[in-house]
Amino acid sequence: MQKGTSKKPSIQEIIEKALHNLTQERIKIVSSGRTDAGVHAKAQVANFKTSSKISTNRLLIALNGNLPDDICITEVTEVPQEFHSRFSAKSKIYRYSILNRKYPSAFLRNQAFFYQFPLDIKLMLQEAKSLVGTHNFASFKASEKKDKDAVRTIKQIVIHKSNDLIFIDIEADGFLYNMARNIAGTLIDIGRGRIKKGDLKKILHSHNRRNAGTTAPAKGLCLIKVKY
Amino acid sequence: MQKGTSKKPSIQEIIEKALHNLTQERIKIVSSGRTDAGVHAKAQVANFKTSSKISTNRLLIALNGNLPDDICITEVTEVPQEFHSRFSAKSKIYRYSILNRKYPSAFLRNQAFFYQFPLDIKLMLQEAKSLVGTHNFASFKASEKKDKDAVRTIKQIVIHKSNDLIFIDIEADGFLYNMARNIAGTLIDIGRGRIKKGDLKKILHSHNRRNAGTTAPAKGLCLIKVKY
Repeated sequence: MQKGTSKKPSIQEIIEKALHNLTQERIKIVSSGRTDAGVHAKAQVANFKTSSKISTNRLLIALNGNLPDDICITEVTEVPQEFHSRFSAKSKIYRYSILNRKYPSAFLRNQAFFYQFPLDIKLMLQEAKSLVGTHNFASFKASEKKDKDAVRTIKQIVIHKSNDLIFIDIEADGFLYNMARNIAGTLIDIGRGRIKKGDLKKILHSHNRRNAGTTAPAKGLCLIKVKY
Repeated sequence: MQKGTSKKPSIQEIIEKALHNLTQERIKIVSSGRTDAGVHAKAQVANFKTSSKISTNRLLIALNGNLPDDICITEVTEVPQEFHSRFSAKSKIYRYSILNRKYPSAFLRNQAFFYQFPLDIKLMLQEAKSLVGTHNFASFKASEKKDKDAVRTIKQIVIHKSNDLIFIDIEADGFLYNMARNIAGTLIDIGRGRIKKGDLKKILHSHNRRNAGTTAPAKGLCLIKVKY
């Protein structure tokens, strides 16, 4: 799912319009946070208030019936008044998907980054450990962004292979703009042998974006879980 | 992958153009058979002759580099002169994919038929057995088509579930136009209880398209294997 560009309405606006159609109320939805442009979301969470008496089950069906087929609601549930999609979130998991074989896939062309060179997953996983914990992630922020506070906590990085697909799952309490893509790109550079064993720690502690690897393409990235 | 419509070049034409770019030869490719409009193919096979000395490995990479990202070549291999993609084929397997749950999927919207009502898979599988074997499949041909010879041999029908997806795999020596979609639609009607237990045999032997169920949407169907 792509975020709206300048002219296109955002996913948020489209959902709010569908809610308006169904309830006749002006509803503002609050999401767990923006995903970067071009990045997918399988598990975005949003909360809203309504005085409508429509059941959650009915709303699930009716909302999907009122949305374009590239925006889907997977669950509707009642939450306590104090629940806040963003502030109540404990962590998020982003998955980076790499199709790692000699030939691309028409079916996965928008959901995985096709990379035809062999990757040393064991090394990637071993190196990734130096990113886990609370660190200043300035080396992995978007180069043009001035995030004042670049300190985040990565709780876990899991890398696994399923047939020709490699998944890099990064769980953190928050992500800087482009952070997940920059980490994925740097891990790919490590797996390919372009960044030496042991260098990831130095890159992290340099707090300098220029030392890290390439930014992996947006289409390979997907928000797969928000934990509460 | 969709077949070209009136104005768009066909997949065959696009591949032939890419081959021409690479070899400077006028190459005609022979596929294992047309897929119906709107139907995907994960495993189409085509053969061609060339006097080019380019290696098969190199051709795989170069062809994919010369094709749009919705057409992918997965294998290039040399075959004996007498090999013919269509005439040498022993059978084909078409897979019909159904997303069977309460809410749709943005990611599968073009590759599976979203069907929200419960389906009795055991009954579908049991009934499907009456289609296996050599029969006149006129009841499952496209209503507007006059296939003179509607006799085909279905070697196997396998139905299995993986999470929310139900797959109907039909292996036959050949398929009439719309036959796979008409069988899938009829099996869905059986699973939903719209066609009674035991009626599929009668439908088959009636040789009358009107007795069978609905035609399942094209996007759920995919050619997944050609056996030689």
